[in-house]
Amino acid sequence: MSFNIARTDKKRVVIVGGGFGGLKLANELHKSGFQIILIDKNNYHQFPPLIYQVASSGLEPSSISFPFRKLFNGYKDIHFRMAEARQVYPEKHILQTSIGKIDYDYLILAAGTTSNFFGNRRIETEAMPMKTLSEAMGLRNALLSNLERSITCATDQERRELLNIVIVGGGATGVEIAGAIAEMKRYVIPKDYPEMDPSNLHIFLIEAGNRLLAGMSTEASAKAEKFLRNMGVNIYLNKKVTDYQDHKVILEDGMEIPTRSFIWVSGVRANTIGNLPEEVIGRGGRIQVDAYNQVKGTENIFCIGDQCLMTEDKNYPNGHPQLAQVAIQQGRLLAKNLKRLNQGKAMRPFRYKNLGTMATVGRNKAVAEFKTVKTQGWLAWILWLVVHLRSILGVRNKINVLLNWIWSYFTYDQSLRMIVYARKAKEVKDREERESKVHWGEEPPTTDNIL
Amino acid sequence: MSFNIARTDKKRVVIVGGGFGGLKLANELHKSGFQIILIDKNNYHQFPPLIYQVASSGLEPSSISFPFRKLFNGYKDIHFRMAEARQVYPEKHILQTSIGKIDYDYLILAAGTTSNFFGNRRIETEAMPMKTLSEAMGLRNALLSNLERSITCATDQERRELLNIVIVGGGATGVEIAGAIAEMKRYVIPKDYPEMDPSNLHIFLIEAGNRLLAGMSTEASAKAEKFLRNMGVNIYLNKKVTDYQDHKVILEDGMEIPTRSFIWVSGVRANTIGNLPEEVIGRGGRIQVDAYNQVKGTENIFCIGDQCLMTEDKNYPNGHPQLAQVAIQQGRLLAKNLKRLNQGKAMRPFRYKNLGTMATVGRNKAVAEFKTVKTQGWLAWILWLVVHLRSILGVRNKINVLLNWIWSYFTYDQSLRMIVYARKAKEVKDREERESKVHWGEEPPTTDNIL
Repeated sequence: MSFNIARTDKKRVVIVGGGFGGLKLANELHKSGFQIILIDKNNYHQFPPLIYQVASSGLEPSSISFPFRKLFNGYKDIHFRMAEARQVYPEKHILQTSIGKIDYDYLILAAGTTSNFFGNRRIETEAMPMKTLSEAMGLRNALLSNLERSITCATDQERRELLNIVIVGGGATGVEIAGAIAEMKRYVIPKDYPEMDPSNLHIFLIEAGNRLLAGMSTEASAKAEKFLRNMGVNIYLNKKVTDYQDHKVILEDGMEIPTRSFIWVSGVRANTIGNLPEEVIGRGGRIQVDAYNQVKGTENIFCIGDQCLMTEDKNYPNGHPQLAQVAIQQGRLLAKNLKRLNQGKAMRPFRYKNLGTMATVGRNKAVAEFKTVKTQGWLAWILWLVVHLRSILGVRNKINVLLNWIWSYFTYDQSLRMIVYARKAKEVKDREERESKVHWGEEPPTTDNIL
Repeated sequence: MSFNIARTDKKRVVIVGGGFGGLKLANELHKSGFQIILIDKNNYHQFPPLIYQVASSGLEPSSISFPFRKLFNGYKDIHFRMAEARQVYPEKHILQTSIGKIDYDYLILAAGTTSNFFGNRRIETEAMPMKTLSEAMGLRNALLSNLERSITCATDQERRELLNIVIVGGGATGVEIAGAIAEMKRYVIPKDYPEMDPSNLHIFLIEAGNRLLAGMSTEASAKAEKFLRNMGVNIYLNKKVTDYQDHKVILEDGMEIPTRSFIWVSGVRANTIGNLPEEVIGRGGRIQVDAYNQVKGTENIFCIGDQCLMTEDKNYPNGHPQLAQVAIQQGRLLAKNLKRLNQGKAMRPFRYKNLGTMATVGRNKAVAEFKTVKTQGWLAWILWLVVHLRSILGVRNKINVLLNWIWSYFTYDQSLRMIVYARKAKEVKDREERESKVHWGEEPPTTDNIL
């Protein structure tokens, strides 16, 4: 296998990951004299802030994703390849991927994060994360099939397990999915499941820290908590989940909550890439970069977005929050800096400009805060809608999401309640297995046998 | 496990399958004094005529499906259960299902058909059928990932295999998916895959009979063939596929076509239900019924739609074509007949009223024929659009499909080109495995140990 991309006289920029940061960078480098190669393990860009609405049957995956090839229609200097990055060989300027190796002049890591299970294998196997569209669809299917199952299951104990929904992690994602499920309980379940007593369905939101939405003000935290409690969500703060066994979430203080819907949104860990010097890996697996997003100790490798850790921005000595805005701003600046490098000019350091943060809890309920303004409730909710709608790529997707929202708002309905699994063709299954054997065997390939 | 539905003083009608026939029957029996229980292995009704557009990235599954529970909102006499029928015990009036047993006064089998691989295990394992939404999504994912793969694969032979798309079966589904892929080749591939020479992508449509669309007039067949040939589809008539080996479709005459996109739409076989007397199973596994859709030799079991074989309609001595219209008309009449039975009146025999047949080939190209009118081309295409749009359930779905069609028409684009697999939660996987062991173990359960 190979990339099948010929070298030109232009410098080659290889970007790993087409999330907010990587895509911004690629677009800003377009038409500025580079050969740009973007690789991503998916063939589409996705919009993570709305993934929870896919999980709660409010939106289709296609409404918040966009195929890279369509984005780059007609761009002769940008090449997309669906692949996973494996190892980097800095001294040879070569990146090894699932579809072969590629040499680069500049390598940009923008591969984001993955769910962090803090080393607990049982939680990793049993819990349902919600970081990707695939996971969100799987979660949707599991929630719906647990509801069906609760009606016909054999014992009361199993019914209790099926009707308890436990969400671990009180960040924005946890708050948003808790709110969405609470609305489903209130508006959809009584109509769809006349044979069920909705008061038997319990939603738990568990947070290890002392407040929800730790990234926002205490005012916002308190308001979000109040909103959720009013919607019937059981919130436990200062509680740490230590295990999951026999369909029970087990907490550090000995408390147990029986559940078969165990949602894990309790933190992230940066995606790894093999063969980087160990000393550049910082807290949460994040790759340490200098003020120009250059990976420490390397010449031509950069890292942007959630995957990197920059401690040289004076307002953020412990690193930036892992938010879309940081990635976008870093992508934009890095594009400028690469152009400057090419012109023999000095690069400019990164300073994060906080444009505000927000989280939605439910109909007419959100919290938002900007430099000078803090607001909660209806206005914050409208702001949230506008900001997110503006940020979704593509006119068609914008229309789609808007129509879905309007429809749901007036009908009190999340209507995509179909349990559908894409059946995997044998050819695809075989290929995946073959590739995982080649690349992830017992012994990681050495530089010698690969290059 | 159990159904958890108490008996009332009303007679209980159990319907297996919520396709066109079963759903029509349930809706027509609503408010007429029965207790109606509909079981289906999915939690949604689907619209098979448009499944090919899901496979070809034109529509989302949610646009052509509708959750049963939403359909039955507020209907106190209709109960839905997600379950698979296993065996029937006619003498005890009991149906055994994946969620336990249920007793009935009337049992209606409306479980439709499944793909027929004519006993070839290798074809069954390797080919991609397109009967269900899951299969259509799997096919979409496989087609898209094969295109990606064709750019980076190691050998020319593999590239050829990845770029040949072989469709076996020249009925309406085969013609429609061939047309949709041909349009993708023409309008989408050149833009999305600048590194690919579209002329290397070959579409083959193979039919064992001597014409396409055997259910329609020879005029329609000829026109559909002409349309497809002009769109660049390679059509082979009178060719029988006998095997698939080493990524090659093997034909009876020795011809071989290398392909990794092997689509099988070559015929159907009625779904089976255990423990029915062998003599009632007719051609294609269809259950033989009398003129009232009553299963021969039983008292209170009926079968409607694609799953049944009725030879007593004088215009259709070999049975009806397996079409939506037949199922709908049989469902409607059976509802009347069950009401008549309840009133001690005699049932009325079924006569199929042919409302016409149609198939679409591509933009502005379709074939349609009614009792007095045959038309091909633009007018047929408009008729096809109107008829199908009218038949889709739900205002929201109609709007969705219409907007998608308008968008695709003007942009020449099928824009849902994301490869997404729903990740299955371990809990769901475990449950499926457990259930399949309980119900499909080595030894089928006997009447004694089950009841």
